[in-house]
Amino acid sequence: MNNQGFFITIEGPEGAGKTTVMSDVVAQLTAEGYDIVSTREPGGIRISEHIREVILNNTYTEMDGRTEALLYAAARRQHLVEKIAPALKDNKIVLCDRFIDASLAYQGYARGLGIDEVLSINEFAIGKLMPDLTLLFDLEPSIGLNRIAKHDDREKNRLDVESLAFHESVREGYQEVVKRYPHRIHVIDASKSQEQVTKNVLEVLRKSLQSRMK
Amino acid sequence: MNNQGFFITIEGPEGAGKTTVMSDVVAQLTAEGYDIVSTREPGGIRISEHIREVILNNTYTEMDGRTEALLYAAARRQHLVEKIAPALKDNKIVLCDRFIDASLAYQGYARGLGIDEVLSINEFAIGKLMPDLTLLFDLEPSIGLNRIAKHDDREKNRLDVESLAFHESVREGYQEVVKRYPHRIHVIDASKSQEQVTKNVLEVLRKSLQSRMK
Repeated sequence: MNNQGFFITIEGPEGAGKTTVMSDVVAQLTAEGYDIVSTREPGGIRISEHIREVILNNTYTEMDGRTEALLYAAARRQHLVEKIAPALKDNKIVLCDRFIDASLAYQGYARGLGIDEVLSINEFAIGKLMPDLTLLFDLEPSIGLNRIAKHDDREKNRLDVESLAFHESVREGYQEVVKRYPHRIHVIDASKSQEQVTKNVLEVLRKSLQSRMK
Repeated sequence: MNNQGFFITIEGPEGAGKTTVMSDVVAQLTAEGYDIVSTREPGGIRISEHIREVILNNTYTEMDGRTEALLYAAARRQHLVEKIAPALKDNKIVLCDRFIDASLAYQGYARGLGIDEVLSINEFAIGKLMPDLTLLFDLEPSIGLNRIAKHDDREKNRLDVESLAFHESVREGYQEVVKRYPHRIHVIDASKSQEQVTKNVLEVLRKSLQSRMK
């Protein structure tokens, strides 16, 4: 068995059901004996949480796209150093909700900064720690936005309130990213029922974990 | 006359007298009819001020060097977009206290991240807006630190409280940066009297502004 842990990321828009499905999946795999650290950016790291306050403040409408991309990379770096890298070194399976591909799709593609340029500052941030496996929850943006709209309890952040056109562009961005990393990224159809999505995710993860453990 | 304005940056350690000298210089040049916008990072831009709070919080001792470099680049970007670029477009002379060279010296060299790597994320941040002219206030670090120590009214930030060895490394870093940009950067001996330093700075600036205006 490899002694570098295993690094899995989950990607996709808000409203795609990532959080609920991943919670079920982690419970199931943990019951089967896998040692999983589940996290999401900014991961409870105080410096990254502080950066996140700047990024998502919904009054900062003047924020430039490059400022946004650099802030995400900074928050990612600190979360990686304090939480992801130590867990991987400790040979754990790390499951992280959103990571580098979100920046490539949102800032690189949808904000029009260029996937290569945003990749370059993220490589500065993460070094060689690319995910081993990524699950992309794919969903028609209008469905995701409708699901978010029903969550009246959550305040909408600066990215939630972007237009449908922006969220459609994010989806196209993710599709571009899949073309670049076809072996790493598995697309999950998130329009299916929660049970079906959970089942599909578990299938991909078990297969990947088992081949990794051999 | 060029219609892109003229972009001057001032670099060097705390305690080198930059603020006092620049204030005298701006007053003098303004009296002579030059149209000068004087600024310093984070430039009163609310997003950059908010980022600065994260960078300089003196309890964040766990901050990684790459996080620090990305945060400076983010604050720089927003300040550039909101303040420096519009003033240059308006054909003004912009005088900015600290800019890209500070990151190359502090994070690239003294933090050991590499000047090229830090240059790369800063190019993402500033695009083609490199300074036309840079004045580097050079000073023995122990003298600068002694001057800071006498300012009891100012709270020391996370970088002020670094060791003498760190500040000596910053000085070496600036010297490396001068080797890369010998035509852009003029070194000013900041150990001289305030009057003498002001006189030297005015001499360099007048010469440069006059050749620019031709």
